Amino acid sequence: MKKIVFDVLNNDNGTHFAILGAAAFKSKNKNYEIALVGDKEIIEEELAKKPFSLTKDDFIIVDSKNLVYIKSSPREALKNPSSMLDAFNYLIKNDFDAILSSGDSGAFTTLSMLKIKRLPNVERIAFMPVLPSTKGIHTLLLDAGANIETSAQYLQNWAIIANEYHKLIFNSNNPVIGLLNIGSEEYKGSTILKEANSLLKETSNLNYLGFIEPKDAINGVVDIILADGQNGNIFLKTMESSFLGFGKLLKKIIHTNLKTKIGGLLIKKQLNKLKNEFDYRNVGGAYIIGLEKVVVKAHGGSDEIAFENALNQIKFVLDKEDFNKNLKEGLSKINNEIK
Amino acid sequence: MKKIVFDVLNNDNGTHFAILGAAAFKSKNKNYEIALVGDKEIIEEELAKKPFSLTKDDFIIVDSKNLVYIKSSPREALKNPSSMLDAFNYLIKNDFDAILSSGDSGAFTTLSMLKIKRLPNVERIAFMPVLPSTKGIHTLLLDAGANIETSAQYLQNWAIIANEYHKLIFNSNNPVIGLLNIGSEEYKGSTILKEANSLLKETSNLNYLGFIEPKDAINGVVDIILADGQNGNIFLKTMESSFLGFGKLLKKIIHTNLKTKIGGLLIKKQLNKLKNEFDYRNVGGAYIIGLEKVVVKAHGGSDEIAFENALNQIKFVLDKEDFNKNLKEGLSKINNEIK
Repeated sequence: MKKIVFDVLNNDNGTHFAILGAAAFKSKNKNYEIALVGDKEIIEEELAKKPFSLTKDDFIIVDSKNLVYIKSSPREALKNPSSMLDAFNYLIKNDFDAILSSGDSGAFTTLSMLKIKRLPNVERIAFMPVLPSTKGIHTLLLDAGANIETSAQYLQNWAIIANEYHKLIFNSNNPVIGLLNIGSEEYKGSTILKEANSLLKETSNLNYLGFIEPKDAINGVVDIILADGQNGNIFLKTMESSFLGFGKLLKKIIHTNLKTKIGGLLIKKQLNKLKNEFDYRNVGGAYIIGLEKVVVKAHGGSDEIAFENALNQIKFVLDKEDFNKNLKEGLSKINNEIK
Repeated sequence: MKKIVFDVLNNDNGTHFAILGAAAFKSKNKNYEIALVGDKEIIEEELAKKPFSLTKDDFIIVDSKNLVYIKSSPREALKNPSSMLDAFNYLIKNDFDAILSSGDSGAFTTLSMLKIKRLPNVERIAFMPVLPSTKGIHTLLLDAGANIETSAQYLQNWAIIANEYHKLIFNSNNPVIGLLNIGSEEYKGSTILKEANSLLKETSNLNYLGFIEPKDAINGVVDIILADGQNGNIFLKTMESSFLGFGKLLKKIIHTNLKTKIGGLLIKKQLNKLKNEFDYRNVGGAYIIGLEKVVVKAHGGSDEIAFENALNQIKFVLDKEDFNKNLKEGLSKINNEIK
């Protein structure tokens, strides 16, 4: 039996959608044990309403009533009581396999780092969302903001890990990896990026392409976008906001007059399909990688589809028996090569 | 008489559009002297074709036949002969007021830095494009990639300069300035960004908002987006590529079938209007700021509209007699405050 602990409280839309997602997942995956961490009363109320013929007895319920709260540092998440902190404590104490939350990224990353053991040879964890691309394929981006400072070694570690994740999640063979930079020329960018570029070229078993620019990342030229945390985060947020912004402008256009409204109706079906492809809910949450446990951060505004997909993202990894073994083997090889 | 030197050779589409743009500008601005640097024979041929009743005698023509070429460092632009290098040399030797090129950004920035005197109290130059926002207003972004390493002081310098530029270009009163970061919380981001945040808050005469995220930058929450060169460049390129990517996907959707094609026709007018608003040709080129001369980099794929607009961007600044004086005053005040 695989075991997931789920912080259902820290969600922009309240506990409701988290419970719907958990119930939808559980009804299809009876072999999964799920511990729901949140306000017990609300959780039980929500479960009583559910149409999945599941009851509160199908879940473990961990009562915890506080939202995560940080003011001047994400490390405060370690001190202030919250359902997120309780979820991490539950994960460790009961040796669960995975954790899911849609709460504050900084707090979640910090607690992951402080509470869960790192995989051997991994120097730093990374934040790794699954992204859409205009080519219709999905790409992995890391690090998307777990680290402010990055080293060439970290980037190499992350490449190895992301390589294994990509092969597993997308059933791919030899995913193409690119390093996000301000230009594709080798002389461009910071010293650390240049060092990482050399190191990655020398790393065997990686299909490393070299430096890439944002356009390559967006157009699906690579399967894995490596980035330092600062650039990766700016890239991620800019892409999300641009697509959202364009969508809003398009909606405004369609509402101009009767003619454009009819026009909008005629392309509506295809437009919705496109919207779905770029919808974070279908694209999925972000993995926090480099840890002994499977850690997934769902979007703050997740609904039931998003949460069910996030749970499926965890399942992907947990169902693959030899995943952590393969990962550790890959990592140990690389670190031997460096020495 | 104001004097502009224009490198017409380094353009993805050849000399043709550069000459069209220069002729269109000159026909409306007889008080401007323009030196065209490029292949003399081609320039004269192109000018002979022109419908503006202008002849080669209306321009200074500087014969220069090499495209800018750099292989491993933009500093090579200083050694390898090129029309860009010749344009800079002409600018300095003949004490012209401004320079325009659509050639390689790295080479252009490097030559600007090495050939032109910096304004007093300016520590580093910055690359400052004019950007569209979803709110319909235009924003200034700097630094968008002239510097790999940034300091808090540089960011403060740039804020002062961009403030003057914004007031001038957009006739604005008290432009809102934000510092691009991975989050709006004060504890987020690199040490340099945090230092800059404190410094900017203490700087008088600036309408400084604090840290902003990419979404704020895209949605027009601020008038001036301050950024370190690496983040600013990633932001700029990601935004451009996202909008382009979305546009392509939309085009594909519209071409699905007869129904969607009709739908596309019905919204075409509004869509073109939107496209124009986000078109770099109408938005304009990028200023390289912090220098005694007016320096503008046009887009590599510029056409005649783009070049004419880039020349108008130069005119904006040159026509304002007291611009450089105001700029110097602003800068001297600030630097006194720091001391």
